[in-house]
Amino acid sequence: MTEIIRPTFVVDKQICLRNIASMAQKARHFNVQFRPHFKTHQSATIGEWFRQMGVYSVTVSSVSMAEYFADHGWDDITIAFPVNILETAYIDRLASRISLNVIVDNQDSAEILATRITHHLGVYIEIDTGYPRTGIISSQTGQIDNVLDKISRNPKLVFKGFLSHSGHTYHARSTNEIHSRHFDALLKMKSLKSEYRHDFPYIGISLGDTPSCSICTNFEDVDEIRPGNFVFYDLKMQDLGVCSFEDIAVRLICPVVSRHLVRNEIVIYGGAVHLSRDFITNINGKKMYGRIVIRKGGQKILLDPLNYVADLTQEHGIIKLEQSQFGNFRIGDLVEIIPVHSCLTANLARNYLTTDGENIRTINS
Amino acid sequence: MTEIIRPTFVVDKQICLRNIASMAQKARHFNVQFRPHFKTHQSATIGEWFRQMGVYSVTVSSVSMAEYFADHGWDDITIAFPVNILETAYIDRLASRISLNVIVDNQDSAEILATRITHHLGVYIEIDTGYPRTGIISSQTGQIDNVLDKISRNPKLVFKGFLSHSGHTYHARSTNEIHSRHFDALLKMKSLKSEYRHDFPYIGISLGDTPSCSICTNFEDVDEIRPGNFVFYDLKMQDLGVCSFEDIAVRLICPVVSRHLVRNEIVIYGGAVHLSRDFITNINGKKMYGRIVIRKGGQKILLDPLNYVADLTQEHGIIKLEQSQFGNFRIGDLVEIIPVHSCLTANLARNYLTTDGENIRTINS
Repeated sequence: MTEIIRPTFVVDKQICLRNIASMAQKARHFNVQFRPHFKTHQSATIGEWFRQMGVYSVTVSSVSMAEYFADHGWDDITIAFPVNILETAYIDRLASRISLNVIVDNQDSAEILATRITHHLGVYIEIDTGYPRTGIISSQTGQIDNVLDKISRNPKLVFKGFLSHSGHTYHARSTNEIHSRHFDALLKMKSLKSEYRHDFPYIGISLGDTPSCSICTNFEDVDEIRPGNFVFYDLKMQDLGVCSFEDIAVRLICPVVSRHLVRNEIVIYGGAVHLSRDFITNINGKKMYGRIVIRKGGQKILLDPLNYVADLTQEHGIIKLEQSQFGNFRIGDLVEIIPVHSCLTANLARNYLTTDGENIRTINS
Repeated sequence: MTEIIRPTFVVDKQICLRNIASMAQKARHFNVQFRPHFKTHQSATIGEWFRQMGVYSVTVSSVSMAEYFADHGWDDITIAFPVNILETAYIDRLASRISLNVIVDNQDSAEILATRITHHLGVYIEIDTGYPRTGIISSQTGQIDNVLDKISRNPKLVFKGFLSHSGHTYHARSTNEIHSRHFDALLKMKSLKSEYRHDFPYIGISLGDTPSCSICTNFEDVDEIRPGNFVFYDLKMQDLGVCSFEDIAVRLICPVVSRHLVRNEIVIYGGAVHLSRDFITNINGKKMYGRIVIRKGGQKILLDPLNYVADLTQEHGIIKLEQSQFGNFRIGDLVEIIPVHSCLTANLARNYLTTDGENIRTINS
């Protein structure tokens, strides 16, 4: 810690290992395949932490990320992003050397895959279970059949089942709402599975984001789960009631460069290019880009939410403080920020540092 | 363009050159030193475009960025970010090989600089002229004198004058408000200069962000300007009335991966890790993360603002379209996005591509 002189993304390995172990244990308990999403950490080193816990199947969100992890020994990868047909040649090449799955949500993409793919490739049909981003709405079986028709034209394409990301759990206003959104998605996916199981007896359901996988207990008929954020967790997940502060494994450590007593603010070296501009709403109704942890007498203390990152410009972070806290921050001190969205903050770091001082390389190194 | 298969940050070199030439010409006209801020492009190649127009003095926002440009032949650099005392050794080392200026807004930092710096280093005192981020409020001459007292203890530290970033011009609601905020800042800086000129006859005023430098015409007593964003401009600057669409030199080019007629939306490969989460408010009151340009019959057409990037997740961008436009977008098409904040979008790209097909390396390459 004392060697940090610039904004640094720090990972507590022990907390990560506990988060991974806990989710792996939950997957075993519910008898579902654990295929964690590696887009959160994007690091081969952290990937090894998963492998040591018996994880051999993973999810990524781009072809580039799949190539990176394939180069680091992962041979069972799902790219959980609607297939980008401009990258078909890269997908085909990757499919020649590992067990690769892609997802499709329209017949145009399916048709192009059918024309161009020459190696064994698993294909999931992406289903919109209530989060309107990508995927075929579960009741639109005509569209599903059209995609299946295209897939069937190329024997290298193997229909693996239905995949959904219930991203609307991230926007729930209570944990009860997470439960109900997860259950609703589950019912839709179960219904599809039973409808298509007759023709495709080996198909599976892939479901499960960090909010639902962290707190829900109904995974009936689910074949695999793909949470990603849980390895680090973050302020958003804590705010949602999905994890506790003790489960958040990451911090952005930033030096104090400026103090403004007249408005009870300090400025840190650590801005939008380090934290990202994702925010949540603070108890005072204002945007909050992070919460603050300080060390005092060897103890770590999480400050009250009225001490928070209130604004970010490119390299500057503005921290609003209660008057009683102002004296605890001096020029050159290091402040620990709990990021709002760890996936985006991690993506902005070239390397991570562990609390044990280990340098961790990532896809961005 | 047709070789692009993934989200790609594209720069129109001709527009950049025009923007640089125009600002350089304006600086000459008003007889002020042109010290452009390189935090927007962070690229040695684009730096060369400036050098070819006679620019030899630049601004950066971090010690790392100063080191990068020093390694590419720049020998007159101001780090316009409150000095981070944890990096003093790096600053001192850099000051041994180039003409380097830093900025200071508190006596604690000034005192540490005075203790540790062993090479000639220019020091500006940063002034808060109405944008409450960093800097000493211009009326607080007691604080200024305290800083000057510390600086004076080390003859290697040379007081260069007063520097201010009037960042509140970015939040103006009209171009008139930009003019008035700039004029207010100018008056405060002039007053300081005249107050301290007696003791420090060679001090200067460094002022001027992209909004004010683009449209204002009063630079009386200003010694240098430091605009940065103008090299690319962006949707935010256009929205502010500071540039026209024809002046915006950059696009994020993204493939279409999913189409949703039922809600008139398409999804592109291009998300928060490519565009950044900065937004402006659209005419319908919603968040807008970018505007859309399409090509039709060899023509580039800027679509109406009701066709816009409406949401971003890590790798996904969601574009809302008017019904009449939906048919113009097919799976695999490339969409041109005008970014809201080009500095952050550029920072997320590892390399840029010019419209002529040249690959441009950056500090992140």
